[in-house]
Amino acid sequence: MKGEILSTGDEVCSGSIADTNAAHIAAGLADTGITVTRHSCVGDDMNDLVAVLSEIGERSDIAIITGGLGPTVDDLTAEAAACAAGVDCVLDESALESIRRIFAKYSRTMASSDVKQAMLPAGAAPIFNLAGTAPGFIMVIGRCRCYFLPGVPREMERMLAASVIPDIISFQGDGGAITIQKQLSLFGLPEARVNDRLAGFSKRFPSVKLGMLARFPIIFVKLTAHSPMDGLPNGNYQAALEENISRAKEWAAARLGDSVFDVNGRSMEAVVGDLLIKNSATIAVAESCTGGLISHLLTNVPGSSDYFLFSGVTYANSAKMNVLCVEKETMDTFGAVSRETVRQMAAGVRRMSGATYGLATSGIAGPAGGTPEKPVGTVWVGVASEKREETIRFHSPFNDRLSNKQIFAMWALDALRKILTDL
Amino acid sequence: MKGEILSTGDEVCSGSIADTNAAHIAAGLADTGITVTRHSCVGDDMNDLVAVLSEIGERSDIAIITGGLGPTVDDLTAEAAACAAGVDCVLDESALESIRRIFAKYSRTMASSDVKQAMLPAGAAPIFNLAGTAPGFIMVIGRCRCYFLPGVPREMERMLAASVIPDIISFQGDGGAITIQKQLSLFGLPEARVNDRLAGFSKRFPSVKLGMLARFPIIFVKLTAHSPMDGLPNGNYQAALEENISRAKEWAAARLGDSVFDVNGRSMEAVVGDLLIKNSATIAVAESCTGGLISHLLTNVPGSSDYFLFSGVTYANSAKMNVLCVEKETMDTFGAVSRETVRQMAAGVRRMSGATYGLATSGIAGPAGGTPEKPVGTVWVGVASEKREETIRFHSPFNDRLSNKQIFAMWALDALRKILTDL
Repeated sequence: MKGEILSTGDEVCSGSIADTNAAHIAAGLADTGITVTRHSCVGDDMNDLVAVLSEIGERSDIAIITGGLGPTVDDLTAEAAACAAGVDCVLDESALESIRRIFAKYSRTMASSDVKQAMLPAGAAPIFNLAGTAPGFIMVIGRCRCYFLPGVPREMERMLAASVIPDIISFQGDGGAITIQKQLSLFGLPEARVNDRLAGFSKRFPSVKLGMLARFPIIFVKLTAHSPMDGLPNGNYQAALEENISRAKEWAAARLGDSVFDVNGRSMEAVVGDLLIKNSATIAVAESCTGGLISHLLTNVPGSSDYFLFSGVTYANSAKMNVLCVEKETMDTFGAVSRETVRQMAAGVRRMSGATYGLATSGIAGPAGGTPEKPVGTVWVGVASEKREETIRFHSPFNDRLSNKQIFAMWALDALRKILTDL
Repeated sequence: MKGEILSTGDEVCSGSIADTNAAHIAAGLADTGITVTRHSCVGDDMNDLVAVLSEIGERSDIAIITGGLGPTVDDLTAEAAACAAGVDCVLDESALESIRRIFAKYSRTMASSDVKQAMLPAGAAPIFNLAGTAPGFIMVIGRCRCYFLPGVPREMERMLAASVIPDIISFQGDGGAITIQKQLSLFGLPEARVNDRLAGFSKRFPSVKLGMLARFPIIFVKLTAHSPMDGLPNGNYQAALEENISRAKEWAAARLGDSVFDVNGRSMEAVVGDLLIKNSATIAVAESCTGGLISHLLTNVPGSSDYFLFSGVTYANSAKMNVLCVEKETMDTFGAVSRETVRQMAAGVRRMSGATYGLATSGIAGPAGGTPEKPVGTVWVGVASEKREETIRFHSPFNDRLSNKQIFAMWALDALRKILTDL
């Protein structure tokens, strides 16, 4: 079945707020086997609303529409839906009763404009709203089953889960689809190269859809398999789909080689954390150019206090000397951005914290501070353990501070990951 | 003039990622006086792409289309645009040359699939991409001037600002609007409360458009005034618009009170950095629950190495003792999350680094680790200077780690900001 999503409201259309509802709804529909073919957004304009609802009525099987159900003059959605379906709006007693209950619950008095929220297109079935005053409704426009929900994410999300998704599943009947999704996490290959390596995928695995999601500097490769909408009962598909997508994942992982750092779609910091736990190891970090980002990433993982001991963000050279015991002579001779300094930083933070591993960065994130020998984008990464010291120089092509911090942090975490994997 | 935005790509259409490009573009177009009447999003499907591009060609004056320009098999946008305009794709030599330059700059070898990115619809003018390999292009479909840009936000944003907006302004000619925009930065008021405080704004300032942009936990209040599209020459409007929007900004700032931390729309970390520079002061940070985020934010500001000396992310209690000289007895008696510990952390990091100010956090970001006395969401913030020590307890309603880290970091920076402002 084909689905669409329509977001309404001037604040979304003008860009004052980003439309996060659409992504939430699309992901929810995907789980029911509905393929979302289009999102649209129009402002609070009656002509635009009626036009887009009429188009959707011709085009799709299922649509979720958010926004414009409140009590104010620019809440036009119910009227527009009635117009697109060629009916009038009428007072829905059960919707009015639900609004009364919400006001009573919060001990608020109802304004006359609130009654407007119970005026629904004739023939619509209300969807009750437990978190706010505006009820939603279900109605058919053209050939499309349309679900109207409020635009407030908290209210919309509850109504979607409690009422809309179950209604869609029962509406689809036994032919409902199964969807299986697998994800690989990659670092170090540009998107075009990932694509070249995976050439021939769709010929080899025609029933598995290949997608790529870039979250700089990480790329996630997503594999999705749907069972057909009708045919055999679900049970017969499950095992076949599982086997097919597993073979596709193995093939893709083999092609992508060492850039795949996780075959379960996890983040780099979660993978590193997991390896530390498996090795009963702890970590301390000495950050210069990354300015705390490595620590922020590592501590985003719940439970990281079990292995993350300390990070020293030693921007000033005096801090490198006082906290990490980097020698003044080393910095004077080689500079703060050098193999020798980063080696002493990694060893120093490891020694002072008592951690199993010390991880250090020193580089030039920009936009200023580069020299011909050490241009913006240069970074040294150091890893120290009891038995091993490793230092690696990387160079990024970026000139902006945040991109460089992000890729520097990932190079550092990836260097540690490789060492932990090699053990 | 009427504008539209089209986002393409399965990952957006399926809800794997939220479409933040559309909001960014809509806000950018608003500055040029273009009214965005619709956003759409379709997946990587040739039929859907051609259909929606044809509709846009009939409906709008200007359109910005993002995504699907890369080298991969599911990058179909150029071909779909050619089909909608009834032309073929041809190799654009200048686009190919720009791709070659990017590869040379990054010392990478071009893959054969990269050449595909220079195949543009006949008659299209390339838009060069300085941050990535896929060029954009400008072409007319139907009656609509269409700007095609890559979907990667970093690349799209640069090309929009450098090429698209200037082209739209010159395309509009002398009848183009003047737009003046002012922005207030807020922290500490929920969106609904901001809205209540600003009730009556549009009646009082009918020619100024009010918008809100929530970037958790910060809210930006945006005020925009446009001159009419035709009529008097621009010069006559400029002064009147300036005066009107300045009065509106003053009124809004007065209503929003102390939650406004900047009247020029800057980030909290930029404001704090500026105050430190003005006071010839330096800062050192001791982070526990915020895990490096405060340091990451402070060091995102170019030039922060002038005032940011050191941060100790002291997750382990041993690190609090060894690096910051927090007394073991204090932690044993009061716990790591306590007024006494955070006071010693702030004083300790200030003393050891020689900074003017020490800023410290200790709390429970969750999801685990809460107790009845110190539930998840509890945080202590400490600020130390030579003359002053301040400790404040905050409590957030959130249970997720990242939200808590974000709001804890902002409470800490805001506490320092207030002290620096009071001087």
